[in-house]
Amino acid sequence: MLNFDYCNPVKIVFGEGTISELANLLPANEKIMMLYGGGSIKRNGVYDQIKEALKDRNLVEFSGIEPNPLFETCMKAVEIIKSEGVTFLLAVGGGSVIDATKFIALAAKYQGEDMWEIVSNNEMGDALEDALPLGTVLTLPATGSEMNYNAVISRAETDEKLAMHNPIVYPKFSILDPSTTFTLPERQSANGVVDAFVHVMEQYMTFNVNSPLQDRQSEAILATLMEEGPKVMKDPENYETRANIMWCATHALNGMIACGLPQDWGTHMIGHEITAFYGLDHAQSLAIVLPSLWRNKKEQKKEKLLQFGRRLLGISIENEDAAIDETINKTAAFFNSLGVPTSLSDYNIDAKEAAEKVRDRFNARGVAFGEHADITGDAAFEILLGCK
Amino acid sequence: MLNFDYCNPVKIVFGEGTISELANLLPANEKIMMLYGGGSIKRNGVYDQIKEALKDRNLVEFSGIEPNPLFETCMKAVEIIKSEGVTFLLAVGGGSVIDATKFIALAAKYQGEDMWEIVSNNEMGDALEDALPLGTVLTLPATGSEMNYNAVISRAETDEKLAMHNPIVYPKFSILDPSTTFTLPERQSANGVVDAFVHVMEQYMTFNVNSPLQDRQSEAILATLMEEGPKVMKDPENYETRANIMWCATHALNGMIACGLPQDWGTHMIGHEITAFYGLDHAQSLAIVLPSLWRNKKEQKKEKLLQFGRRLLGISIENEDAAIDETINKTAAFFNSLGVPTSLSDYNIDAKEAAEKVRDRFNARGVAFGEHADITGDAAFEILLGCK
Repeated sequence: MLNFDYCNPVKIVFGEGTISELANLLPANEKIMMLYGGGSIKRNGVYDQIKEALKDRNLVEFSGIEPNPLFETCMKAVEIIKSEGVTFLLAVGGGSVIDATKFIALAAKYQGEDMWEIVSNNEMGDALEDALPLGTVLTLPATGSEMNYNAVISRAETDEKLAMHNPIVYPKFSILDPSTTFTLPERQSANGVVDAFVHVMEQYMTFNVNSPLQDRQSEAILATLMEEGPKVMKDPENYETRANIMWCATHALNGMIACGLPQDWGTHMIGHEITAFYGLDHAQSLAIVLPSLWRNKKEQKKEKLLQFGRRLLGISIENEDAAIDETINKTAAFFNSLGVPTSLSDYNIDAKEAAEKVRDRFNARGVAFGEHADITGDAAFEILLGCK
Repeated sequence: MLNFDYCNPVKIVFGEGTISELANLLPANEKIMMLYGGGSIKRNGVYDQIKEALKDRNLVEFSGIEPNPLFETCMKAVEIIKSEGVTFLLAVGGGSVIDATKFIALAAKYQGEDMWEIVSNNEMGDALEDALPLGTVLTLPATGSEMNYNAVISRAETDEKLAMHNPIVYPKFSILDPSTTFTLPERQSANGVVDAFVHVMEQYMTFNVNSPLQDRQSEAILATLMEEGPKVMKDPENYETRANIMWCATHALNGMIACGLPQDWGTHMIGHEITAFYGLDHAQSLAIVLPSLWRNKKEQKKEKLLQFGRRLLGISIENEDAAIDETINKTAAFFNSLGVPTSLSDYNIDAKEAAEKVRDRFNARGVAFGEHADITGDAAFEILLGCK
């Protein structure tokens, strides 16, 4: 196990009917901005529940935050915050709304000229020490943003999608009511399971550093997602299933399973570019990249691939190469079983073109990802060729 | 899954060499009291490391905190804190030192007359809103006190041992350096594994509420303790083994695995009385009570006993009664394999006398424990008769 620091102060309020606790969670006398996306929270009753809980509060609304939230949209929120004197942000939605709110929380207090630098210059952005406080009401389990300090922001003008991480944007609280997810479209339910699954894999599927507890904690999430994922597709209004998936997604990226471990994140970094260039959903991009990345890195990830296959997929093939191939195939088959494709051709994207675009961008930025920092532009090119 | 709230803001700093980070973790200009137990931290080098890290700080020392820390001892620390103007407490040791420090943190700010009421009157003590801030350097993994807000305090005058729980005594930080545990006596190493194991069981071994993630998170800790426990007895200076056990013990009682679950704590409540009356180590009392409590409650705990036996102990006996008996026997055998006995007679304690004493005390207090609140004085009597 490697040395590590861990601190996660987010207050989780979990269960049916908990939105009514908002009035106790939000400090009195704050000027609150409620941020949300399209109109789904109006259709599923969440909007009304929040308005009822906060009927005596000073509240402004900001709607229209899109999936893969845009810098351009965030800038509009910042303007209103400044003109209205907003002091507390309440994000209501999934990872996109929460990520946007984290960025807005920093941008509203930012003293520099170019707010895009908060994400484009991580050395600076991740060290900022002032942000508006924020809380969340989660309505789409997937990204774990409700219990971490990460955010990913896109910029339409430049087709960029970039990540930031700053502990001052940890939510003060997050309300997780699984019944708010009953009406999610199938595609979003499936995406959420895939997203959480891949989050765990970015932290688990690397090399062995003698961390049996963390390995099993990761496997606990993976096993539960594989068990509950198919159930939710068949029975979307089952509270218990929705609750189990929601709690899995939060644990998949709240930092705990990463304690003392090397991490990969290559699948995400390549996936972000596929979303930025071609507009695929985040989880769709991950489902395409992960199997190919594993095939490409199977020597480096051998021990963990075998452990995952043997412990969780029931693979007993003795030949290690064959066992690993079967592990990768079964993982892709799991994504497919939820209705999430695993090839670029399923979206009519030319693999060679995508591979060249991502290679050129990684090379231009001089970046490299993965637990060995060897997923360079050229490695990403090979991985994407394998996604056709 | 039941509704729940969860918030754990403790900053964990984990790994070899991390004591040197104390100077960064402790706010400047504090008047610090360093609290510790006997002399073990002077023998294992921890004392010198701390003095070096804090050589420029305003520091007073308070030593002599005993196992099952005494109210009477804590009162002496409170006097010094008041006369010296101490503003920050640094606990250096295991659960006893940390628990005592939590109690002292509250007592130093307590406005009432009888400080024993902080633990004897939980309704009042658990609601107190003022305490000195504290940090910890853990040298004995067992109780999880380094990452929770619980404390158990004994009183010599009355042979009492009582628990309190108040979020304001969450440590601000806890330093976990596994190399500080290389020189622990065998008995303390074994006790630590048993203590952590039983903590998990108090939260896991109840009835099924459809919580597959939390179940597997608990099983992750149990499996790792059963794997690493025997290793540490054979190879006490193996850093990786010590690190894995330390991180297991922290997770066993940081609140995470209890989210949304019913809890038992009957073994602990009966065990506390055995320690109060007969002076056994905390873990020794738990190892005696747990198997008998399970036998007594095997109908109520049937589903989870079978799950534990089948998933973690490799029990494949089809007959459910026989499988449960084997599960309980193998659990007791695990404690025995670490050198921890499982009968009162091993300590020359008369089971009937102990059963009567605990029954009378529970009845006098009018208390009942367990996930069904049915471990009354009479039930405790039966359970202790089964420990002979």
